[in-house]
Parts: sequence; C-alpha cells; structure tokens
Amino acid sequence: MMLKAVLAALMLTTTPALTDELRGTGDLGLIVERETGSLLVVDRSERAALGRIEGLGDLSHASLVYSPDERFAYVFGRDGGLTKVDILTRQVVRRVVQAGNSIGGAISDDGQLIAVANYEPGGVRVFDAETLELVADVPMGSKTVGIADAPGSRFIVATWDTGEVWIIDHSHSPAQPGITRLKGIGANPYDALLTSDGRRYIVGLFGEKGLTQIDLWQDPPEVTRFLPDYGRDQPDMPVYKMPHLQGWTLADGVFALPAVGLHQLLWVDADNLTEIARTELAGQPVFALARPDRREVWVNFAPPDNDKLQVVNTLTHEVLDTLTPGKGVLHMEFAPRGREVWLSVRDENRVEIRDTRSREVLGEIEARAPSGIFFTDRAHRTGL
Amino acid sequence: MMLKAVLAALMLTTTPALTDELRGTGDLGLIVERETGSLLVVDRSERAALGRIEGLGDLSHASLVYSPDERFAYVFGRDGGLTKVDILTRQVVRRVVQAGNSIGGAISDDGQLIAVANYEPGGVRVFDAETLELVADVPMGSKTVGIADAPGSRFIVATWDTGEVWIIDHSHSPAQPGITRLKGIGANPYDALLTSDGRRYIVGLFGEKGLTQIDLWQDPPEVTRFLPDYGRDQPDMPVYKMPHLQGWTLADGVFALPAVGLHQLLWVDADNLTEIARTELAGQPVFALARPDRREVWVNFAPPDNDKLQVVNTLTHEVLDTLTPGKGVLHMEFAPRGREVWLSVRDENRVEIRDTRSREVLGEIEARAPSGIFFTDRAHRTGL
Repeated sequence: MMLKAVLAALMLTTTPALTDELRGTGDLGLIVERETGSLLVVDRSERAALGRIEGLGDLSHASLVYSPDERFAYVFGRDGGLTKVDILTRQVVRRVVQAGNSIGGAISDDGQLIAVANYEPGGVRVFDAETLELVADVPMGSKTVGIADAPGSRFIVATWDTGEVWIIDHSHSPAQPGITRLKGIGANPYDALLTSDGRRYIVGLFGEKGLTQIDLWQDPPEVTRFLPDYGRDQPDMPVYKMPHLQGWTLADGVFALPAVGLHQLLWVDADNLTEIARTELAGQPVFALARPDRREVWVNFAPPDNDKLQVVNTLTHEVLDTLTPGKGVLHMEFAPRGREVWLSVRDENRVEIRDTRSREVLGEIEARAPSGIFFTDRAHRTGL
Repeated sequence: MMLKAVLAALMLTTTPALTDELRGTGDLGLIVERETGSLLVVDRSERAALGRIEGLGDLSHASLVYSPDERFAYVFGRDGGLTKVDILTRQVVRRVVQAGNSIGGAISDDGQLIAVANYEPGGVRVFDAETLELVADVPMGSKTVGIADAPGSRFIVATWDTGEVWIIDHSHSPAQPGITRLKGIGANPYDALLTSDGRRYIVGLFGEKGLTQIDLWQDPPEVTRFLPDYGRDQPDMPVYKMPHLQGWTLADGVFALPAVGLHQLLWVDADNLTEIARTELAGQPVFALARPDRREVWVNFAPPDNDKLQVVNTLTHEVLDTLTPGKGVLHMEFAPRGREVWLSVRDENRVEIRDTRSREVLGEIEARAPSGIFFTDRAHRTGL
C-alpha cells in the first residue's frame, strides 16, 4: 500500500512536471544583457521572461544564431567566446574561447557548421555545431567583418585590411573548404549584409566612398560599385555610431539604407542601385528595419536621439509616426509575421512590446540593460 | 529504505524519459497520408519518421497550418473536420466537424484565430485557436476558396459563386469582424494566393479568361485584371488537374506560373503584370515552387507525367534538369533555408529527400500514400 501511495504521489508530481517542460520552441527568444554577461529567455506568446542563462563572458556587441530545431543558440562574444546554450533547459551546453576578439558568426544552411569571424587573429574559424570542435581554420591575413550563411553550405565574409570578399564552400569537404576570393572590393569594408534570398551581398566601406554589391546568382559572382558619392561627406557632423548594414532593408525592390552621419534614410532601387529618394529623420539612423510585411520601415537612432523611433511609409517615403519608448532604444525585433515588435530600452532596464498597427504598448519585461533581441524564427532565415 | 529504493528506481526511469521528450520543434513536420486519415510526424534533422497521428477523417486535399510555437497543427479536412493535433505528444487534442465540406484554412498572424473556408454551407467560420470554439460565422452566399492570413489579424478569401473578395478584419473585435467586400473580381474564382509579404492577392478564374490582383498595400485595395488571354484556350487538350495558385512563385520580381492545360511555365513581371517569357515543360505543371533562395523553380506535373520533376533556372528560364523520383510525385517541401527538398511519391508509399544542389537522393521515409508535406517553419510565414 505504501509503495502504491508513493507511486501515486510521484505520478502527481512528475506528470505535471513533464507536461510543463514539453513545449514548442517556435515562439521563444533570447535577449542579450550585455553588462551582466547573461541571456534572458523569453516567450513571445506569453510576453514574459522564462528565466536567465548566465556565464557568457563579454557580451558587448554580441550576436547569436539558432540551430535548425530552434532549441540551441550559438552566442558570439566580443571576448572570442563561442557559447552553445540550450534554451529549453536554460543552461550553457558548451563554451570555447576560440579567438582573442570576435565580432560575429553564422550557421550553415544544413545546421552542421558554425563559422566565426575574428578580429584577433583575423580570418574565419569553422566549428562543428554539435561538439564545437574546430573543423576548419581559414586565415585571411586580415580582420574579418559581415560574415553570413550563403545558400549551399557556404559562408561569405569581407576582409577589413585587404578589401576582399571570401566565399567559403563546405558542401564537398567541411574540413577542406573550397575558397573563392574576390579582390578589389574597396578600402576597409566595415560591415556587410546578405539579402534574405541569399542573392546580394552588400559591403559597406570605411576607407572610401561608395558601396560594393556582390551578385551571388552570377557565376562567377558579379561585383558592382554603387552610390559613388555615398559616405562621410560632411566632416563637421560627427558620426556617433556607424549604422549596421544588417539594419538595411530590401522592401519591394527598394533598399532602405540608414545614411552614415546624416539625419536621413536613403532609398535605393535594387535593380540599378541608384538613389531614388531621401527621407528626413529625427536623428542619425542606426537600424532601418522593414516590418515583416514590408509596408513600413521602422528606424532607431544614435545618441542623443536614441530615445526615439520613427515609422516610415515604404511607398511614399514619408514619416508616419514618431514614438518615444524611452532612453536607449538599442534594438527592435519583429514577431515573424509582424503582429508586434519588441524594443530594448537599455537605460530603463526593460523591453517594451508594441502592436505594429496601433503602435500601442502591449506589455513590458524587466531586463538588465538589454541590447540585442533574437527570436527563434531566425533559425529558418538566410543571412541573419 | 524501501521508499528510497523506489524513488531511485523512479528517478532512473522518469529522468531519461523527460530528457527524451524535451526537444525543439523547429525541425519537425507533418506528412498527410490521405487514404488512411493519418499524419506522419517527421524530424528533418534526422530525416526520419517519429510516429503517426491517426483518426483525422477524410484527408483528401487536406491542408494544415501551425501555431506560432510550432507545437500544434490545425488540419482542414475535406469532410468539414477541423482537428488540432499536438506534434510533441502525437495526439489529437481537439476535433470539431464544423461544416459539410471545407477546402482550406488559415491562422491569424497573432496565432489566436483559425479561419476555415467552406464549400458547404459556404462562407467562412472563425474559431478560437486554443479551444476550437466558434468565434465568428461569416456567411457569404457562396462557396469560398483561397483563404489566407493577411497581416493585421485579417483573413482574405474569394467567393466562387459571386466573384468577390472579402477581407475579414479581426483586429478590433474577433467576434464582430470588420468586412471589406470587393465585387466584380471575375467569374468563378477557383483558387487564390497571397504573396509572402502579404501585399498581392492573386485570384485565378474558372469562368473567364485572365486573372485578378488585389494590391493590399493600397487603401482602398486596388483591383487589377491581367493576362487577359490566359486560361483554357486549347479545348482539345484536357486539363488533368487545375494548378494550385499556392504553386505560384514570386522570385526576384517575377511570377512563375503553371499554365493551365499547357506544357508550359509562364513568367510574369510582378510590377506591370505582363508576360515576359514561357518555358516548355515535360507535362502539365501543378506546382512551380521556388527553392528558398529563388535561384531555381522546381515543377511537378499532372498525370501522366507525375513521375517527373523539372528544375528551371530563374534568370534564364531554361530547364536545368529533369528528375524521375517515381510514380505520383504529388508535393514538394523545401527545408526553410533550401538545403534539401522532400518529395511525396504517393504511388510508391515513400517520401524521398534530395539535396537541392547536387539533386542526389539523401534519404527516404516510408509513408502511406503520402500527399502534402508541411514543415513547422510555415508557422512563421504569411500566406501559407
């Protein structure tokens, strides 16, 4: 009888626990808490925090990518740390310090490989996604920037010191990848982006004016310089923060591009790469992100205007609305089908959730100096 | 002591079980087994079946959508059944027979509402995604086709008998939705599609030539007729199967469209809606799907050519390859970032998995007369 009672009691406690743990991972996310080296695990559906993962080292400018099953994240820290975390158990699974200074990474389209772009010692290192063991080391004699996962188990990256773009092809042999090296891209690439179809790799240049596009649909890849007058052309206006190229948007055949050092959004025709319009903004733009339906572009700003957001009409290029969520709006992440947007309000230690139509506040989550917000649907997208 | 031993034994058996169950849901999928009224649960990463969910009624022409957390699927059966299944526990959670004959459904962009388009009694019924309780009944005096989830918690649907398009807006009051009714769309819409940005709703017409586009970015929505000579214009060639409009593809500003009753793929400029090219094919096309990077369009065929697939170059419109996976290739589903494609080979009771670059066979899964394949990443996409 006692045994039966114990079993019954255990059934009561273990069965609900099992049910509690079983859950889908499509509506989860991670928020980088840079100063405390931690990640906040959040549930989009509940608009709530589920818990925290600690011990990730230096997370300033950290970014992360997700495994195809949306259970694990790979976090790229400024200290060269590559950390694999389990968002279901909320634990660090593995951690390696793989370089002296890393700035970003990518996961291959088959989910097997993690590539990290390094400042120190430069080049790219590729790791096994399961074990984090080194699979390939690709020195390039340069710091590397703007790494992305190109279709076909490839990675693409730009080199700061040598002005090149390298395409690393792991489809035949992960340990001995094929290399395509494109020279003469321009002086000092500082960042790059790959469009979501994997076709266009756009490289931003620090050392000269203009930008470079690599069209990966052509064989060999086609290199085009464009916007020859674009760049830091007003030396009396300091650049408070170089805009991320990941902050560009391709909406209905038109790029929306945060202008470096100007209070403007530039609209560029994607077919002929010429400027078609400019929108005057409330400050120096950092991210210009299309709402997932692309009908609007949402913009945040460098200091001293980083308390604001502006919403711009994709068709008319007019500012529709100016919002002031609070001090230090560092990052925006849209729900995958665009119903709501989550905003990091760093200096107020909170994340604000807004309806993307009414723009009303729907909820708020406490977080420690939050910066990047990453929802798990990124696992299914190219170039993030 | 005995209690301790029992506890220890239970720990051994329950803890591994718990670990086994914990898993991400981003790489799962469901395959419709139409003749047995069952769903095969599959794991993309393992290229394997995990189990089967039975008791779903008549699944001919069945389709399904996923909850935002990628745990639950809502299955729309031909018998009017709306079934909610849990892919983690592999059980039917709820089932209602909501109409006499239904042909498809959609989930709102906030994940709260399920809409079903009905032949009998016609119109659209909207259900609570959690409970499957009726939230709104929208009679339209017509059979309805081509229902899709438009951004902003809206549904859009076409009416077969009356040639209209209805937009049902649940953003203010789910139980009393706002209705926008567009008349004069054309005679007998038989299917429709919404592009992935939610902008263009394309309606196919059975009763007259040509197609109709609704531009949802305009206010009011802009209605445009196009391809006035398109349709069944060769009466000596029977149409074995009307192509699904969901089989259209928008790749780099160009629609690839399976021509009704012809052995051709039509290429239509999305900006001005005029035909720009045709590709000769090996049979009557059914689905023309872009690989997720859009560099290729993959086409399957109506009988007697439904053992084949053709791969077409998006830029040159040339056929690159003809594959013969086997008898009854009914459906293709790409991995979200396009690394592989899964093919239903119905008459051979198997699903074949191919590399989308080398086009080699990577694996095979036994299934009972498989038709539709649905991966969970659809939860994050508009218009599916």
